[in-house]
Amino acid sequence: MAVVQISCTPLGEGSGGLSKFVAGCLQLVKESGLNYQLTPMGTILEGELDEIFALVRKMHESPFNAGAHRVSTLIKIDDRRDREHTMERKMRSVEEQLVE
Amino acid sequence: MAVVQISCTPLGEGSGGLSKFVAGCLQLVKESGLNYQLTPMGTILEGELDEIFALVRKMHESPFNAGAHRVSTLIKIDDRRDREHTMERKMRSVEEQLVE
Amino acid sequence: MAVVQISCTPLGEGSGGLSKFVAGCLQLVKESGLNYQLTPMGTILEGELDEIFALVRKMHESPFNAGAHRVSTLIKIDDRRDREHTMERKMRSVEEQLVE
Amino acid sequence: MAVVQISCTPLGEGSGGLSKFVAGCLQLVKESGLNYQLTPMGTILEGELDEIFALVRKMHESPFNAGAHRVSTLIKIDDRRDREHTMERKMRSVEEQLVE
Repeated sequence: MAVVQISCTPLGEGSGGLSKFVAGCLQLVKESGLNYQLTPMGTILEGELDEIFALVRKMHESPFNAGAHRVSTLIKIDDRRDREHTMERKMRSVEEQLVE
Repeated sequence: MAVVQISCTPLGEGSGGLSKFVAGCLQLVKESGLNYQLTPMGTILEGELDEIFALVRKMHESPFNAGAHRVSTLIKIDDRRDREHTMERKMRSVEEQLVE
Repeated sequence: MAVVQISCTPLGEGSGGLSKFVAGCLQLVKESGLNYQLTPMGTILEGELDEIFALVRKMHESPFNAGAHRVSTLIKIDDRRDREHTMERKMRSVEEQLVE
Repeated sequence: MAVVQISCTPLGEGSGGLSKFVAGCLQLVKESGLNYQLTPMGTILEGELDEIFALVRKMHESPFNAGAHRVSTLIKIDDRRDREHTMERKMRSVEEQLVE
């Protein structure tokens, strides 16, 4: 499983207020049924990488559909295949280190 | 105020288990007194940019102090100066769009 | 057209020497026939976004095929649709500003 | 030595034409005397990390000085301390793998 962060930012639009575009992307995430976490700096997705790629491709298109002419999208993939790899597991691993 | 995401990743170390290094960085965040949020893909900091830069510089050094020879650090700054700009405000703006 | 930067980094492998993995990814880029530029911090691709997505998906798989268990991939898309948008055009726009 | 990529992007300004802001940042790079490479997706800097941090801090301020109200800055640091680490060395390592 992969954990993937994505943010889609229209450039030259919105006078700096971009929440409308973020909400449009988030709607697609909700419809996908994938596990996700919204953070102040992007949306984190969890799932099979091919499903995530299909969703990411749609999310990038969303600001164009809402009127943007230029979109900057940043995607960071953390893909680990030798053990369980989820958002929850990543958080727990760090917390366990802090307790020790 | 700026909202800044940072992740520090040692390369060629740890056989893929990096939580020890993340915990070392997080300890510095806690000591800084800045507002922060730990996410599965990095730590989000909130505050004055000069304070954040000083902390980021220390965080990047932390994996070297723990034995790493190479560190990849990714920093994304979202700095807005025409209105209040916090993690909480960014989240609320998106949520308000979703309700409508 | 989109201009996209990608870097694929195996974690916990190679004791910090990652050029073998980069070369494997680059081989896929060459075979794709897309315009590209290799830089010290990643590979920049230019072309239709769907073609680029298909290539990016393959590139991310390449370090796993070479033995990696965990791969961190960073992708930055700059997609502009209201005028010609190429690597060469982006560079020329900046250079024209410098001359003035 | 560290190799660092930076891009500073004003949000909500310029109707998508950002080369003026890029040129302002690049002017600071030239004045710094550091080795650098301009690419279609950002500027790559090479040097001592403290010098680079000071320059990055100035570059992030540059679009505000040119009228922007919100700036998104992305910084990726690749810092290696067990051998020579330069832009030229990184490129050569990949090219040697391709020849074999």
